[in-house]
Amino acid sequence: MAPAVIPIPIDSLLAALHIVGTAVFAASGALVAARLRLTLVTFLFFALATGVGGGTVRDLLIGAPVFWVHDPRLAIVCCVAGLAVWFTPYRWLSPRAVDWLDAVGLAAYSVFGTAKAMSYGIDPFIAAVMGILTTCVGGVIRDLLAGQPSILIRPEIYVTAAALAAGLYPILLAGGASEAVAGLVAAVVGFALRAVAMTKGWGLPAYRGGDSD
Amino acid sequence: MAPAVIPIPIDSLLAALHIVGTAVFAASGALVAARLRLTLVTFLFFALATGVGGGTVRDLLIGAPVFWVHDPRLAIVCCVAGLAVWFTPYRWLSPRAVDWLDAVGLAAYSVFGTAKAMSYGIDPFIAAVMGILTTCVGGVIRDLLAGQPSILIRPEIYVTAAALAAGLYPILLAGGASEAVAGLVAAVVGFALRAVAMTKGWGLPAYRGGDSD
Amino acid sequence: MAPAVIPIPIDSLLAALHIVGTAVFAASGALVAARLRLTLVTFLFFALATGVGGGTVRDLLIGAPVFWVHDPRLAIVCCVAGLAVWFTPYRWLSPRAVDWLDAVGLAAYSVFGTAKAMSYGIDPFIAAVMGILTTCVGGVIRDLLAGQPSILIRPEIYVTAAALAAGLYPILLAGGASEAVAGLVAAVVGFALRAVAMTKGWGLPAYRGGDSD
Repeated sequence: MAPAVIPIPIDSLLAALHIVGTAVFAASGALVAARLRLTLVTFLFFALATGVGGGTVRDLLIGAPVFWVHDPRLAIVCCVAGLAVWFTPYRWLSPRAVDWLDAVGLAAYSVFGTAKAMSYGIDPFIAAVMGILTTCVGGVIRDLLAGQPSILIRPEIYVTAAALAAGLYPILLAGGASEAVAGLVAAVVGFALRAVAMTKGWGLPAYRGGDSD
Repeated sequence: MAPAVIPIPIDSLLAALHIVGTAVFAASGALVAARLRLTLVTFLFFALATGVGGGTVRDLLIGAPVFWVHDPRLAIVCCVAGLAVWFTPYRWLSPRAVDWLDAVGLAAYSVFGTAKAMSYGIDPFIAAVMGILTTCVGGVIRDLLAGQPSILIRPEIYVTAAALAAGLYPILLAGGASEAVAGLVAAVVGFALRAVAMTKGWGLPAYRGGDSD
Repeated sequence: MAPAVIPIPIDSLLAALHIVGTAVFAASGALVAARLRLTLVTFLFFALATGVGGGTVRDLLIGAPVFWVHDPRLAIVCCVAGLAVWFTPYRWLSPRAVDWLDAVGLAAYSVFGTAKAMSYGIDPFIAAVMGILTTCVGGVIRDLLAGQPSILIRPEIYVTAAALAAGLYPILLAGGASEAVAGLVAAVVGFALRAVAMTKGWGLPAYRGGDSD
């Protein structure tokens, strides 16, 4: 577990999580636009708003310059992801493709969001809360634009998977893991929980109103 | 009415309004999560987003550091409020409990939001507008997350009660009242209007399309 | 096309687009409140939130002070627009009045938003993206508050018209046009596309899922 054993450059891993998160959230937004049979420009709008929406909220909360406003490459990533969906025949798209892309975005953004907040000197607990909050905002914006029920209120585990990834990262760091190891492990564990929840229909015990008290 | 007669420290009253507003909005968000039978982590997410959402918008608008990002105690207040709802048997919760908590939050946030904006040198008229706007944002976020119709478009007085509390505060200050007196009176009056509107079904004259002109 | 031939002061034109955009979006918000038969204060809230919402997001994204927080005149413009709708008999209001006001706001805000972002040193491509994004946010906020389907997902051209206005402005500038000419031409062309789309029911080719591949 010594950093030297895992030869992943720290910055590269976090940057990769950032780009992956942006791209897959963008694609999930474009998929919703596909389902609604929207036009190309509206496709790209959905891709952009979903791809950068969560990170925008994070940057505003921590007082950072909004990342994509000062770096056109992220907006281009969103457009490419949107175009990729546009040119994909609908019959190739699994009905659950949005959820799978969203799951990857959830894992990547929860960890990257927490790491970015910590790099701005935010307390680890609050940094994890913002990793969760801003990850969820991406899906909320997408579902809001499309007028569909928010992914947050579905019975499956969602926020909990984001919380697992976002919370694990600072805990692993405190335990002595390198940023690369902590980031990779936290993202994989968060994705795995969400993936199992989707495929097995797993849920945590929901509020039962004290019937079991 | 002289400040010396009312021995409430000014900062304490405004700080109390802030904490009360955050806690009751958080609890109202958790109650909506209870109605939707969500899991514990999603409960806490609803509590946090509803509890700090309005104040976050206020701080972004006035250019202040977002309050809860730099002070973990407010997030903890939201979690405690969410947990309190989680452990309360549903049959103990009045069907209108969300509205009552929301009414307390409305009064507290309208006054505190106005006071905080004024402390940043914002014009009193705009400060009151922001007290109103950001109070309403809390309820809008909660209703949006839950996919339910916004509290703003219900027939009862809502925005008007927020406006009364937010507008009364600078007027009382201009009239010579201390911050503590102005804050307490404005919050109580705003709450009273909302309470009467809820219990009596009071509404103001609504737009009738000039039928009465 | 030399700037000297067109004696429109640059600042005046952009300032006019700003005020026009704010006023017509505010009126469109009030019209939605009229349709919902809301009370006067809620009317003004809808007018304000719709009128300044898009520009608020733009200013937060580019790191500018939020325009209306430091200049009460814009909030007053919104209130006047809201009152004008309040005192207009409903039978005088065309059922499509919201869409027409929205179209004017779209053209004005797309150009002004792009120009303001460029004045903060933002890359022209991103500036245009923000012109589009923030224009669309106004309508999204209005439709969200009212609980109605977002204007973005209607079959007619909407985001594309905003993109045309927002994209044309920096292109015309790069081609040597003055700010006034570029702003006026871009706004008129964007409005014309939206107007034709509304009256003729024009749409762009929508996603067909590769059926035509």
